[in-house]
Amino acid sequence: MKKNDIPDIIISRLPIYLRALRYMQDQQKETTSSQELGEHVGLSAAQIRKDLSQFGGFGKQGTGYNIRFLVENLREIMKVDRVWDVAVVGMGDMGHALTRYQGFTDRGFRVSMVFDNDQRKVGTSVEHFLVQDIHNIVPAIRGSGIKVAMLCVPAASAQQVTDLLVEAGIKAILNYAPISLSVPSGIRVQYLDPSIGLQRMTYYLD
Amino acid sequence: MKKNDIPDIIISRLPIYLRALRYMQDQQKETTSSQELGEHVGLSAAQIRKDLSQFGGFGKQGTGYNIRFLVENLREIMKVDRVWDVAVVGMGDMGHALTRYQGFTDRGFRVSMVFDNDQRKVGTSVEHFLVQDIHNIVPAIRGSGIKVAMLCVPAASAQQVTDLLVEAGIKAILNYAPISLSVPSGIRVQYLDPSIGLQRMTYYLD
Repeated sequence: MKKNDIPDIIISRLPIYLRALRYMQDQQKETTSSQELGEHVGLSAAQIRKDLSQFGGFGKQGTGYNIRFLVENLREIMKVDRVWDVAVVGMGDMGHALTRYQGFTDRGFRVSMVFDNDQRKVGTSVEHFLVQDIHNIVPAIRGSGIKVAMLCVPAASAQQVTDLLVEAGIKAILNYAPISLSVPSGIRVQYLDPSIGLQRMTYYLD
Repeated sequence: MKKNDIPDIIISRLPIYLRALRYMQDQQKETTSSQELGEHVGLSAAQIRKDLSQFGGFGKQGTGYNIRFLVENLREIMKVDRVWDVAVVGMGDMGHALTRYQGFTDRGFRVSMVFDNDQRKVGTSVEHFLVQDIHNIVPAIRGSGIKVAMLCVPAASAQQVTDLLVEAGIKAILNYAPISLSVPSGIRVQYLDPSIGLQRMTYYLD
């Protein structure tokens, strides 16, 4: 099946399924149903079945899903059955927090380079990483072959730094800066903007 | 129109539209089109028109949208034409970063209380906030009337703290812990899990 055959919205739900299934594994569960998985992630059983059928199913009518089998397949589909090196750009509070974040373990990612433009930070250490000068970011990332970056610079410089990341060969950017980024086609951006997360809920509040 | 008439997926896109429109305002633009807005946010013009038509439109055929008018309306719809007080729970790296985060200004939120369970942190200051003891979280939040919380505790205690937040009257939780939370109906949870953001992109990488 070609990549483009599967809608982005379905791909965007797979990591949610994987997180819920890993949680079930931690609870020593071995099988689950589309009903149960749906309750975990707030979707209907029909939606779960429809999404997973895009990849050929994984379950048998009546017996449900083998969790370990489904986890292995989802990890392979999302290509997180390997470990991706990630560059963190901007060593402010958020960049620091991400560099020290323990939650990437076993989920397909590890921080492997960190950058800042502040000469007082360049050359110092964050965790066991040497903070590199953002002025060298293009050759540094190109040389490493890193494809994934987390962008934690202020909004005012986020687009400029993004252009450098694209030039450096980065294909996937997790953006913490609270602005929309402009990137060439073929480059993926995901936004982790806390205001967006909060604004998605206030609509429902009294 | 009743709340439940509008699909969650549409509500979840409104903050993205708002961010793009605010960006256009910063660029001194006064009008935009569904085409242009769509390009900004990676959706089709038809989708934009369809989403906004749920609220009665806002644009005239041929003349496009008045940005300021659309911004004002979206802010009102999402109820971010006011300022929501937010509790930050867990003063690790992420909680610190969020407490100091400058990106909430003018987007409808302000941190107003911070909590931790570590007695070495309780009573100290983060920014100008006194770190309060998590053991007092239920009366403290109840007394304040705060409805929104950001959860930055480790995964292992996230569910237990969530139960306290629900008991305290919190209705909307922005969850940074990398686990799925179980909450009663009527309580909203949004996940800001960097691994999920990254996993949504690796599928497309070679």
